[in-house]
Amino acid sequence: MAEAVYGPGKDPEHCAGIVAELLAEPDGGPVVITRVNDEQAEAALTRNPGGLRSGSTVVWRSARPRRERVVLVTAGTADLPVADECQATLGAFGFRPCLAADCGVAGIHRLATVVDDVVDADAVVVIAGMEGALASIIGGLTAAPVVAVPTSAGYGAGLEGVTALLSMLASCVAGLVVVGIDNGFGAACAVARMLAPT
Amino acid sequence: MAEAVYGPGKDPEHCAGIVAELLAEPDGGPVVITRVNDEQAEAALTRNPGGLRSGSTVVWRSARPRRERVVLVTAGTADLPVADECQATLGAFGFRPCLAADCGVAGIHRLATVVDDVVDADAVVVIAGMEGALASIIGGLTAAPVVAVPTSAGYGAGLEGVTALLSMLASCVAGLVVVGIDNGFGAACAVARMLAPT
Amino acid sequence: MAEAVYGPGKDPEHCAGIVAELLAEPDGGPVVITRVNDEQAEAALTRNPGGLRSGSTVVWRSARPRRERVVLVTAGTADLPVADECQATLGAFGFRPCLAADCGVAGIHRLATVVDDVVDADAVVVIAGMEGALASIIGGLTAAPVVAVPTSAGYGAGLEGVTALLSMLASCVAGLVVVGIDNGFGAACAVARMLAPT
Amino acid sequence: MAEAVYGPGKDPEHCAGIVAELLAEPDGGPVVITRVNDEQAEAALTRNPGGLRSGSTVVWRSARPRRERVVLVTAGTADLPVADECQATLGAFGFRPCLAADCGVAGIHRLATVVDDVVDADAVVVIAGMEGALASIIGGLTAAPVVAVPTSAGYGAGLEGVTALLSMLASCVAGLVVVGIDNGFGAACAVARMLAPT
Amino acid sequence: MAEAVYGPGKDPEHCAGIVAELLAEPDGGPVVITRVNDEQAEAALTRNPGGLRSGSTVVWRSARPRRERVVLVTAGTADLPVADECQATLGAFGFRPCLAADCGVAGIHRLATVVDDVVDADAVVVIAGMEGALASIIGGLTAAPVVAVPTSAGYGAGLEGVTALLSMLASCVAGLVVVGIDNGFGAACAVARMLAPT
Amino acid sequence: MAEAVYGPGKDPEHCAGIVAELLAEPDGGPVVITRVNDEQAEAALTRNPGGLRSGSTVVWRSARPRRERVVLVTAGTADLPVADECQATLGAFGFRPCLAADCGVAGIHRLATVVDDVVDADAVVVIAGMEGALASIIGGLTAAPVVAVPTSAGYGAGLEGVTALLSMLASCVAGLVVVGIDNGFGAACAVARMLAPT
Amino acid sequence: MAEAVYGPGKDPEHCAGIVAELLAEPDGGPVVITRVNDEQAEAALTRNPGGLRSGSTVVWRSARPRRERVVLVTAGTADLPVADECQATLGAFGFRPCLAADCGVAGIHRLATVVDDVVDADAVVVIAGMEGALASIIGGLTAAPVVAVPTSAGYGAGLEGVTALLSMLASCVAGLVVVGIDNGFGAACAVARMLAPT
Amino acid sequence: MAEAVYGPGKDPEHCAGIVAELLAEPDGGPVVITRVNDEQAEAALTRNPGGLRSGSTVVWRSARPRRERVVLVTAGTADLPVADECQATLGAFGFRPCLAADCGVAGIHRLATVVDDVVDADAVVVIAGMEGALASIIGGLTAAPVVAVPTSAGYGAGLEGVTALLSMLASCVAGLVVVGIDNGFGAACAVARMLAPT
Repeated sequence: MAEAVYGPGKDPEHCAGIVAELLAEPDGGPVVITRVNDEQAEAALTRNPGGLRSGSTVVWRSARPRRERVVLVTAGTADLPVADECQATLGAFGFRPCLAADCGVAGIHRLATVVDDVVDADAVVVIAGMEGALASIIGGLTAAPVVAVPTSAGYGAGLEGVTALLSMLASCVAGLVVVGIDNGFGAACAVARMLAPT
Repeated sequence: MAEAVYGPGKDPEHCAGIVAELLAEPDGGPVVITRVNDEQAEAALTRNPGGLRSGSTVVWRSARPRRERVVLVTAGTADLPVADECQATLGAFGFRPCLAADCGVAGIHRLATVVDDVVDADAVVVIAGMEGALASIIGGLTAAPVVAVPTSAGYGAGLEGVTALLSMLASCVAGLVVVGIDNGFGAACAVARMLAPT
Repeated sequence: MAEAVYGPGKDPEHCAGIVAELLAEPDGGPVVITRVNDEQAEAALTRNPGGLRSGSTVVWRSARPRRERVVLVTAGTADLPVADECQATLGAFGFRPCLAADCGVAGIHRLATVVDDVVDADAVVVIAGMEGALASIIGGLTAAPVVAVPTSAGYGAGLEGVTALLSMLASCVAGLVVVGIDNGFGAACAVARMLAPT
Repeated sequence: MAEAVYGPGKDPEHCAGIVAELLAEPDGGPVVITRVNDEQAEAALTRNPGGLRSGSTVVWRSARPRRERVVLVTAGTADLPVADECQATLGAFGFRPCLAADCGVAGIHRLATVVDDVVDADAVVVIAGMEGALASIIGGLTAAPVVAVPTSAGYGAGLEGVTALLSMLASCVAGLVVVGIDNGFGAACAVARMLAPT
Repeated sequence: MAEAVYGPGKDPEHCAGIVAELLAEPDGGPVVITRVNDEQAEAALTRNPGGLRSGSTVVWRSARPRRERVVLVTAGTADLPVADECQATLGAFGFRPCLAADCGVAGIHRLATVVDDVVDADAVVVIAGMEGALASIIGGLTAAPVVAVPTSAGYGAGLEGVTALLSMLASCVAGLVVVGIDNGFGAACAVARMLAPT
Repeated sequence: MAEAVYGPGKDPEHCAGIVAELLAEPDGGPVVITRVNDEQAEAALTRNPGGLRSGSTVVWRSARPRRERVVLVTAGTADLPVADECQATLGAFGFRPCLAADCGVAGIHRLATVVDDVVDADAVVVIAGMEGALASIIGGLTAAPVVAVPTSAGYGAGLEGVTALLSMLASCVAGLVVVGIDNGFGAACAVARMLAPT
Repeated sequence: MAEAVYGPGKDPEHCAGIVAELLAEPDGGPVVITRVNDEQAEAALTRNPGGLRSGSTVVWRSARPRRERVVLVTAGTADLPVADECQATLGAFGFRPCLAADCGVAGIHRLATVVDDVVDADAVVVIAGMEGALASIIGGLTAAPVVAVPTSAGYGAGLEGVTALLSMLASCVAGLVVVGIDNGFGAACAVARMLAPT
Repeated sequence: MAEAVYGPGKDPEHCAGIVAELLAEPDGGPVVITRVNDEQAEAALTRNPGGLRSGSTVVWRSARPRRERVVLVTAGTADLPVADECQATLGAFGFRPCLAADCGVAGIHRLATVVDDVVDADAVVVIAGMEGALASIIGGLTAAPVVAVPTSAGYGAGLEGVTALLSMLASCVAGLVVVGIDNGFGAACAVARMLAPT
């Protein structure tokens, strides 16, 4: 598994120190900081060279590239920060996920272009806020493992992700699994558990 | 509008009496009892001949037949009691709705057979429990008014209809409207308001 | 239907770009940005001339004027931003809604002046926060379709719109339909679905 | 104040014994058992003669008749058991409340017949389930104290009284006060506190 | 009743204008703005001379002094802003309430000093956050009407007033009545309804 | 600690078997079954002689008598089943708790008789439903450890114990600790942890 | 994937008919009825010979045996019905899961005996009610995929599975995935997705 | 017990004044301000010399040193502010708690180093957010009293401490007691009650 540091609320030097400590373990896996701000990223990268920042995620000691096909599908542009976190963490595990953005149910015709990718995937991560219906639709298209990530994107009855979370848990599609709201990091780790290196 | 009597908790003679009173108004519209049991239905029909029972709904003084195309779509067999109430009430207003049952997201291929009906409909009622994703999908297929009815069918994270309700309210499809959980009667009345006799 | 862009969280150029893309589709309907700030509105209008801003809503490619009578009723002054969004979106569809503001239950006598408008309307949108009782009262006055919009206006037991939402869903008036909290845009789209161009 | 015994879950002899004990205090006020079943009522009345049963409430040692005008208004027939409890308890305090049943918002025209009673009342109790809008309407008609009792009558989004409770607490009518769900006894005691004997 | 303007979210000139309009009605009662900031208060007082500001409440056209004894009891210092709103509004109705602050259950001995005032009161308002137990205690001490105001003071399990609200509604003291969270204005209006001028 | 078996849902022989297994451990502490019905109790006692049943609790291998003073205070008669479970479990640990029943806030004068016991106690367990205010009052009277047990006794806004739970957690009395709803067994174990044998 | 029929609320002949229809598809996968009662099971097995009943689950057309090591871990005996459903469904996919029952956190020493199985597993399903802490512990022991199933076993603050659900979603162990409350069937399908036949 | 002042929302001079008043009582115990900011701390310390600030807690008139062994265990670094408040308050009572930080379930191996301290402790305070599983694990290791403090640390499904709170209340470990979310002060007072000076 990856070792992760959750950025918010930590001061930059503290972030940098934890990363240093984790990198000091000789046989460790990837080290990830999530939801960093610029100060935290700079402090951590200065003290621990070799990290790679992507949006609000920084990764050190990524695994070697792997060939499994992982597909990320998002419902709307507001889901992209969570997708970024997921994508960066998947990268830490050596995956090169393909991202299909903005496939929400309202524009279901856009899904057509990614159906083949989804059907052939080794694992799919669906990232959706609002009513989260996309997870059910994707789950019905493939027999691969599908990890659903509810997001707090949206407003009103989306209840900051609770509606999507409940919707994904109650999905009538068999075998869908769910992680916590906005937890792109967790979804990536779940994929890494499922697609163990062989 | 229709006058409605909600059956549960009322004794049979009380039901029969309220119906009699409502029918006594000379120019009234349809009269409907919802969620009756056998005793209530029998008492009400004996005292007020001319009623038509359909499942747990009884209707008196139905309106003349109308030609608008109303489509009812349900997600699963567990949603049928709500669909029955909706269908019977639509009948009281003179509609002859077409019912497309069991079109849940898990079996999205079954939807293909009803797409044409939905696209050509004057109004659509979507009845779904669990995660309620069907409402978003139907809403994306048609520009007609779509009334979404969350049902308490299902279990666990369906939260007795709350998940479907939130999901429908948070739908990313524009212009979807929602009625209360299991409220097939209300959805039918909403359709009657929308398709006013001309 | 209209194509809508939800402003919050998007940077101005992003807003402008999405609008440009939507306007590029030759036979599209109205394009609407909701809840814009000044920077977003300016960027979008500069890049896409011909838009019309009204409060926090900007509309391009409005439909031709239509003659149906749509009435908007609000309970209090705090509901006006939602009414503005609804009114602007109705305008995008070609409607010229009449607005009856500040008709809350506490001042029920003020309702008297709008009863005739409501009774003669082709569709009514009721926008109310706090306890949302206005929706029930308006629903009891007319047989036209009534779309209820709960608002997050108010405080304490209003629970940021949840009380009004529940109240509207539980209304004892038959055939009332509801959209999400503060969703003036959605209510306008629902009206557009109901009053299809003939 | 009255001394009250809450029936449910107590065995009949236990009920009878508590009543006996309360009646043994020489200068006590009225003694009331609420929500009794037949066995409890019989046991209590046999051991403690002189009680008066009314529905599921039994009262001993009622106060002398009083002249204040108390009006009870209910929204629907399903609210009557709560109204009965309230009426019987008011009787224990010597009041002879006037009951205006079935004045729900859906049939607002029925309210017309009781407006005068409400305006002239010394205190009003409004008993309503579903969306509870009746409390706001009555509160707007009178300057007398108005006690609102949410009831668990209704179904779906009524949430067993929670919707009416929230709605009454959030009412935009100033000075409305609320008691717990189905608490007809408590509303009567509140009236007794307000209309202290002079 | 008083006419009230809720300050938050309104611009100062708007506040001033509504007040002016309300004062223009010749036979009206008191006019109150609640939760004003300095700009709103200044604008309103400049345009409408004769108002009296007290904390975040401004009152115009107060009623003549009255002799009933109204007692305000608060649990902690954090409840004082709500008590101020209640006290200022009571003043608008002509009452001169006596305030017993900081009588929380933790320091129940402090209650001793106000027991006599409470017992002799014509009406009592109890203002408490956290667990709201003070309302039950005060209610057990007096037969006068007791209006309980839950406040959002406190933290954690106080749930911003919800715990106190539920606690007050569930109180085992008969005849306690409750208004919405932090609604000091409403409690004062409730007292004014109860103690009608004679 | 005690080993406990939760009765509900287990068949009698299963209960008897688990108890037998737990008693087979030579140096174990007390063994307790909670919330048994008659069949479960009989089966368990027949197979495992030497147990002592008290209400719905059966205890084997009680500890030797201890001298610490533990006081149980309940708010109402409906709280007694929880008090019984607590008392029986305390007995299993060798305590002989003194029970002060029916000391609810509404009848606060009844508290007077137990104040001395509470002040001198080595530990106090307060068992209360409804608004749970009793815990705050007892906590203010003593410096001994006070364990609060919310009960599901009561109705309406008591929310089956949630109101009392929140109220106890939010208590303004410092150092109050809380266990789960109706968890009389847990409260007794907490006391046993606090008053370790010396 | 498996085709599943949810038993509750369906009459026996209906169950039997749906199974027959699903088995009629020539190349289909396993067919499963969950939560059957005796009448449903008998009707379905009589009409569709060759099914295998295990507790409240009946399976037809199981897949060929597979060699992956799947481990089921339950926290308490009350979780066994969910474990049975999961085990039977895993059997339908050809797995022969090993079951480690009663490894709850309270008896963490019992875990020691299964640590090796968990570490070597290809997939682990953790089934736990109450506080659901077992999922975090198991997740920390293995890099294999871990599917957490919250159960409604337990009482009080377990909130019928909601506490375990939230606890599992909030777990600080990376890569844990969750299915709906009591959804043993869904967890088995998730494992089948993850361990695709090779 | 200690007298405590809750800082947030009080102006610095007010804080200083309350502390002065509390210190004026001749035989009082420790005086504590919690969650102070710099201005409040400075004002209070200037007016009341002799206080000791530690993080956001300031203590006056600490008790004499005591010898009982109190252990504080935290799950993550985000829980430290609550641990600081608890530690400072324990210091006010004369305890010198030993702090074992960052022992969360994900890194359960880190627990090994503190097991002996926990087993030998006179009282343990467990401070954990997210899923709160640490409390169950610690509770299973020791027979000493264990006070669980849920913290609002974490995000998403941690629900600002509610998940940890429910998890701790539902723990299958007997005799665990719980205080409110983030209530490090309360936990310290609970320990002081349990370990009464002898």
